[in-house]
Amino acid sequence: MNIELTHRQALLATYRDGLLQDTLPFWMKHSVDREHGGFCFALNRDGSRLSADKFLWLHGRFVWLLSTLYQTVEPKAEWLELARHGLDFMRRYGFDTDGRMFFSVTQDGRPLRKRRYLFSEAFAAMALAAYANAANDADAARQAGDLFRLMLRYITTPGLLEPKVNPQTRPLKGLTLPMILIAVAQTLRETTNDPLCDEWIQRSIDEIERDFMKPEFDAVLETVGTNGEFYDNFDGRMVCPGHSIEAAWFILHEAKYRGNDPRLIRLGCTILDWSWRLGWDDQFGGLLYYRDAKGLPSAEYWHDMKFWWPHNEAIIATLLAYVMTGDAKYREWHQLAHDWAYAHFPDPEFGEWFGYLHRDGTVSTQLKGNTWKGPFHLPRMQWYCWQLLEK
Amino acid sequence: MNIELTHRQALLATYRDGLLQDTLPFWMKHSVDREHGGFCFALNRDGSRLSADKFLWLHGRFVWLLSTLYQTVEPKAEWLELARHGLDFMRRYGFDTDGRMFFSVTQDGRPLRKRRYLFSEAFAAMALAAYANAANDADAARQAGDLFRLMLRYITTPGLLEPKVNPQTRPLKGLTLPMILIAVAQTLRETTNDPLCDEWIQRSIDEIERDFMKPEFDAVLETVGTNGEFYDNFDGRMVCPGHSIEAAWFILHEAKYRGNDPRLIRLGCTILDWSWRLGWDDQFGGLLYYRDAKGLPSAEYWHDMKFWWPHNEAIIATLLAYVMTGDAKYREWHQLAHDWAYAHFPDPEFGEWFGYLHRDGTVSTQLKGNTWKGPFHLPRMQWYCWQLLEK
Repeated sequence: MNIELTHRQALLATYRDGLLQDTLPFWMKHSVDREHGGFCFALNRDGSRLSADKFLWLHGRFVWLLSTLYQTVEPKAEWLELARHGLDFMRRYGFDTDGRMFFSVTQDGRPLRKRRYLFSEAFAAMALAAYANAANDADAARQAGDLFRLMLRYITTPGLLEPKVNPQTRPLKGLTLPMILIAVAQTLRETTNDPLCDEWIQRSIDEIERDFMKPEFDAVLETVGTNGEFYDNFDGRMVCPGHSIEAAWFILHEAKYRGNDPRLIRLGCTILDWSWRLGWDDQFGGLLYYRDAKGLPSAEYWHDMKFWWPHNEAIIATLLAYVMTGDAKYREWHQLAHDWAYAHFPDPEFGEWFGYLHRDGTVSTQLKGNTWKGPFHLPRMQWYCWQLLEK
Repeated sequence: MNIELTHRQALLATYRDGLLQDTLPFWMKHSVDREHGGFCFALNRDGSRLSADKFLWLHGRFVWLLSTLYQTVEPKAEWLELARHGLDFMRRYGFDTDGRMFFSVTQDGRPLRKRRYLFSEAFAAMALAAYANAANDADAARQAGDLFRLMLRYITTPGLLEPKVNPQTRPLKGLTLPMILIAVAQTLRETTNDPLCDEWIQRSIDEIERDFMKPEFDAVLETVGTNGEFYDNFDGRMVCPGHSIEAAWFILHEAKYRGNDPRLIRLGCTILDWSWRLGWDDQFGGLLYYRDAKGLPSAEYWHDMKFWWPHNEAIIATLLAYVMTGDAKYREWHQLAHDWAYAHFPDPEFGEWFGYLHRDGTVSTQLKGNTWKGPFHLPRMQWYCWQLLEK
């Protein structure tokens, strides 16, 4: 660890205090629904409510966060109580009769949308696993494992998850699935000794390396054929640097878990290098959302916006890569990502971060939470980097 | 008509020459697939291909355009031949066994996506109706009518079209449906004397006025409850000014067809007034894509981008409103929309228009065509305004 002590202490304080004095209080103050249970995450800049609809996958994320903080930071009763509060709502209103989960429900829990994706289930599994650890709750651990196996059944049984594109014509797969499996299995592994966890982490890393990494473009693709085929069209050429940077640190985290496995370190750093070079905006700074592997125009008209979460992932990935390799390049990138993010995303008036900036760093929409943004990427970054710097 | 003669002549030439010497040649040169049939609309700035996938709803739009030009501008053999070329592909590869259409297919016609929406069917009906007129083809006329009735059956039979949001919990409807029904029925009426056309035009206009127009916000909402209920959430508050401006001129067009029906003129102008005031960007000029009826932040992070098509719709609507009412306000708005659009969208190097600009008018993605952008809004505006100014 070569970051000078004072700089390291300042960074640590930024992450720790940001989490405990800003991010967490914002969501604990504004999102909790004591009347109907659960959380309302659709919040305006000042924390006032923009919609009372409830998003199950964000419930899973917040419950995971609260349980993880209870377990790793301090056993604060109000954190565990709030995790339990979220879990109660998820258990009561989140599940359809087939065992799958809804994506969104009304304030009082009536189903609104169920999607083809398994995000609600994935984050519920992570929430249950972390809560099981925090509360020493065997039921929650069992339910987490059941959800993980339900996900595996849906993923491995052809036809159970209806794909967007006709699989007879063009069988495709997305980077999302191996990534979410790594995240779920890494979390579940801390609660159970189910060998399925290690098995699926390895399978998922292998799949990313074999099928999604394309050395001919120095890029990790978002969508490939089921055997890793490259498709020369909009979806096939699409790279989401923030997403592959997240994959990079999942793999680095796994390398650390395995006693600094050198092969995994190289793999994670390669993905980070490729994604950084594709994603970093030399003109305005910050990470671009989408890039085309061949440098062609993106079909997504908002491709050059700066979202909060890729910057959270980049701050984690570059810090972790620096800590694990000592390579000064990662220190420099960490500084770039950290400085740009902290210069543009925090809301000086009401706290927390804005989520959506134009390419030039000006704010596009001031809301703090919606269907996609809740207490996850930012506090996970603050927690992870704080813990990393403390060690 | 109080626009001075020289200004009127200059405007007319801009629209006519733009259509005949720029827009149409661009697509005729670059999009036609002589090998596999049909059109590839995913084109880069210079007309080179970005994807070979074929989008059925854009086929319907181009066939409608070519047939309409043949019928109303000049009976050019190559226009009719190209309309036939597109129609052949649509008939051969566009239909599923249930009579519904695919949304996209591969270059050689294998099905990729079928969507819950009826856009492919709507634009195929318009294409067939216009082609039937141009080619005096009774089969095409019959098929257009059949598709219109298929749409009506899907729309009026509960459960046939699976809604995004659980209809038991929250039965919703969108502005898209009455709008597309007006467009299809207005086109079909020029080919057949089916009384269903007039009936559904009136029903759709009544529905927009009764359920989607909200005087309490001076806004036409995109999504309401099936009985016009206002929902105070992201979707419920969403206004798309370009879309409601398009509805405004559909209604003004209907007023003209009915011998300048004063009630319909007032209705169309009210929608135009509301939408213009919500949508026009006083700071940078141009029309914002989404607005919140209560002025709250939009959930769509790209809400403030400037797309080409709302400007096409605004140029038509303001010119038509000016011609029909003589109100100087509409002349001024037409000038504003026209000038801003022509200052920012045209590509000086390769012709046609860019589709997607940032709020400040700079280009976000340089492509000329994708899943959504093809030869429709721009050439329809050029054709409609040219014809309007010539009368």
